Amino acid sequence: MATRKPPTNPEAEPRVKAVFDDIRATRKADFINNLWPALAFDPVLLESTWAEVKRLMVTPSQLDPVTKEMIYIAVSVANACSYCVHSHTAAARAKGMTDAQHAELLAIVALAAKTNHLVTGLQVPVDPVFDAGAA
Amino acid sequence: MATRKPPTNPEAEPRVKAVFDDIRATRKADFINNLWPALAFDPVLLESTWAEVKRLMVTPSQLDPVTKEMIYIAVSVANACSYCVHSHTAAARAKGMTDAQHAELLAIVALAAKTNHLVTGLQVPVDPVFDAGAA
Amino acid sequence: MATRKPPTNPEAEPRVKAVFDDIRATRKADFINNLWPALAFDPVLLESTWAEVKRLMVTPSQLDPVTKEMIYIAVSVANACSYCVHSHTAAARAKGMTDAQHAELLAIVALAAKTNHLVTGLQVPVDPVFDAGAA
Amino acid sequence: MATRKPPTNPEAEPRVKAVFDDIRATRKADFINNLWPALAFDPVLLESTWAEVKRLMVTPSQLDPVTKEMIYIAVSVANACSYCVHSHTAAARAKGMTDAQHAELLAIVALAAKTNHLVTGLQVPVDPVFDAGAA
Amino acid sequence: MATRKPPTNPEAEPRVKAVFDDIRATRKADFINNLWPALAFDPVLLESTWAEVKRLMVTPSQLDPVTKEMIYIAVSVANACSYCVHSHTAAARAKGMTDAQHAELLAIVALAAKTNHLVTGLQVPVDPVFDAGAA
Amino acid sequence: MATRKPPTNPEAEPRVKAVFDDIRATRKADFINNLWPALAFDPVLLESTWAEVKRLMVTPSQLDPVTKEMIYIAVSVANACSYCVHSHTAAARAKGMTDAQHAELLAIVALAAKTNHLVTGLQVPVDPVFDAGAA
Repeated sequence: MATRKPPTNPEAEPRVKAVFDDIRATRKADFINNLWPALAFDPVLLESTWAEVKRLMVTPSQLDPVTKEMIYIAVSVANACSYCVHSHTAAARAKGMTDAQHAELLAIVALAAKTNHLVTGLQVPVDPVFDAGAA
Repeated sequence: MATRKPPTNPEAEPRVKAVFDDIRATRKADFINNLWPALAFDPVLLESTWAEVKRLMVTPSQLDPVTKEMIYIAVSVANACSYCVHSHTAAARAKGMTDAQHAELLAIVALAAKTNHLVTGLQVPVDPVFDAGAA
Repeated sequence: MATRKPPTNPEAEPRVKAVFDDIRATRKADFINNLWPALAFDPVLLESTWAEVKRLMVTPSQLDPVTKEMIYIAVSVANACSYCVHSHTAAARAKGMTDAQHAELLAIVALAAKTNHLVTGLQVPVDPVFDAGAA
Repeated sequence: MATRKPPTNPEAEPRVKAVFDDIRATRKADFINNLWPALAFDPVLLESTWAEVKRLMVTPSQLDPVTKEMIYIAVSVANACSYCVHSHTAAARAKGMTDAQHAELLAIVALAAKTNHLVTGLQVPVDPVFDAGAA
Repeated sequence: MATRKPPTNPEAEPRVKAVFDDIRATRKADFINNLWPALAFDPVLLESTWAEVKRLMVTPSQLDPVTKEMIYIAVSVANACSYCVHSHTAAARAKGMTDAQHAELLAIVALAAKTNHLVTGLQVPVDPVFDAGAA
Repeated sequence: MATRKPPTNPEAEPRVKAVFDDIRATRKADFINNLWPALAFDPVLLESTWAEVKRLMVTPSQLDPVTKEMIYIAVSVANACSYCVHSHTAAARAKGMTDAQHAELLAIVALAAKTNHLVTGLQVPVDPVFDAGAA
């Protein structure tokens, strides 16, 4: 189910086709996952979302590709985005995440959630030494 | 402000002192952050929480220490736990997270939140190929 | 799937029937969406929920009906309520939300989520000038 | 800090005074916590919120008063509402919650958060037997 | 759909079998719900999760079993964990939660969410008297 | 408190100064709120965030400026971002949001949260008619 019907033939729109072509070239694969046709109703949103994903998740940077995907999964789990958990777990595996790394990721996410809730329940005051904004 | 007054002298309780001593020995530092005295009201909870943190975040494993802290920060941001964001950002820095890695972490967390909300707003159906449970 | 079986014939209960009749009369439509039978197990909860929805979302007020539905969608997305995103997107369309307004709503919700996470990650202190409680 | 300045003398408005008087009579105490003056800008919202709180949290019912406050705290922790965690922890204590019950509450909330995140990370399919909606 | 394929025959692994046997013995039932095979990929995580669930949710303690399950449901609802809402609603019923208690639980969870959002929207300052950390 | 010290003189960096100048020109005001110096550590992130805020929130579009700010507030409340609730409430007022509109916004956000939690607790199945993706 979806709240908006994807276009029947999204690549009939040249701006959409250009993004899809770039996704395929970047990933060296023909497969386009459902997110991108779902965004095709608004070429500006499609272009800017893909550009941001490509810049942050694909361009080589300080963090390695698997680490970046694991961070993405962590946020998606905490925000309860089922689609995002699925798609980024698949992406992490495609980039080399091992089963052992995945197991460890899940255990850390679960532990963080546990202490997040403990701390919020106790309303623990922030230690002054943690304030990076202090002179 | 806190919902529960920490004990005035938590280390008078031997089980609490044993945990605090292990925290100091593990971190090679005298500083005990507010979370641990805040948990001292319940030695079982204190012991089990520290044991889990130590096992997952300190013991060498598949993921390097900075990556583990960044995953912890990502969850803590999404769960809006102010104390946890502060304490794990400090921990990540203590373990070697650079300013550039921190900047990248924040940008990825923000992008993930953005697409989490887009996908939830559109209710994008999960691609069948993402189903790892399929035969 | 549901955690509670809706009554087979909810309108056999006069208080439930009265609410359903008012829903149909208010919306000028026969269709009753699943939420209302799902609440029929508790006539007080059903009556008070519908009364609140009717008062805030149907009665003419400061905000126009489409704006009200868009605010409802925004909260439902952030709370990851799949049913609510679906039902209020349908309601917004029924009240006149255009495709262009829907596209803009989604882009703003996504941007807000992005900056929410950035700000929480940075723990930006609130500007004193924002304090409406100050004298 | 607040986003809206509470009225200087909220009880000058008779509808507000009536609610505040009922809060004091119900709780058998003079103290009015900040939530209620904060809602005084809108007498309808103030009246309906207090009426709902009184009906569900004060009127004798299936669940005992401490259990009700603990459920309230659990939701407030998960929604990261600092004020609500504080006010309902105080309310639970005023109604008899012991330190041992509070400790157990926090441990269960933390465990639930942990398994919530594990399950979301794994996208565990719902067991068909849990479907109460099935015939 | 799942992000990780459960083992075909999880009980071939002795540590997994030991946990499953203990679940069946503890619950006096043959049924093992999907969560446990889903965790079987990592025996340490499986053992520690079940040990924590058993210690907090099964061992007799300050809070009665139904109250504990209702707290668990409350957190799971707020964290939007569909599986957890289903499984713990079933568990609460198995332990004796009545329809009337369930109805009341849902009404309180909904009210808490309502006031959580009101308070966050108003940024109501915490009353100093709620600070249990004060001398 | 903050997790990252803002630069002492952010406008010494020309890219930062250019963004700040554009913020002042766009808003026709000298005041720069804390978010922007907080982002100045990363000119790319600063520029892209401001560009997205300007494009979606300032450029005339389908939705009027007050509606856009109310949607932003709604998401920020649900994500429990204190800073964002403050800054966007101030922005909405600066753009003309009346006290009555603000009151209505808060009441709708609270109602949405209430029904979000009710629906999630009941796991109400989506009505097939809401599926916009259907043929």
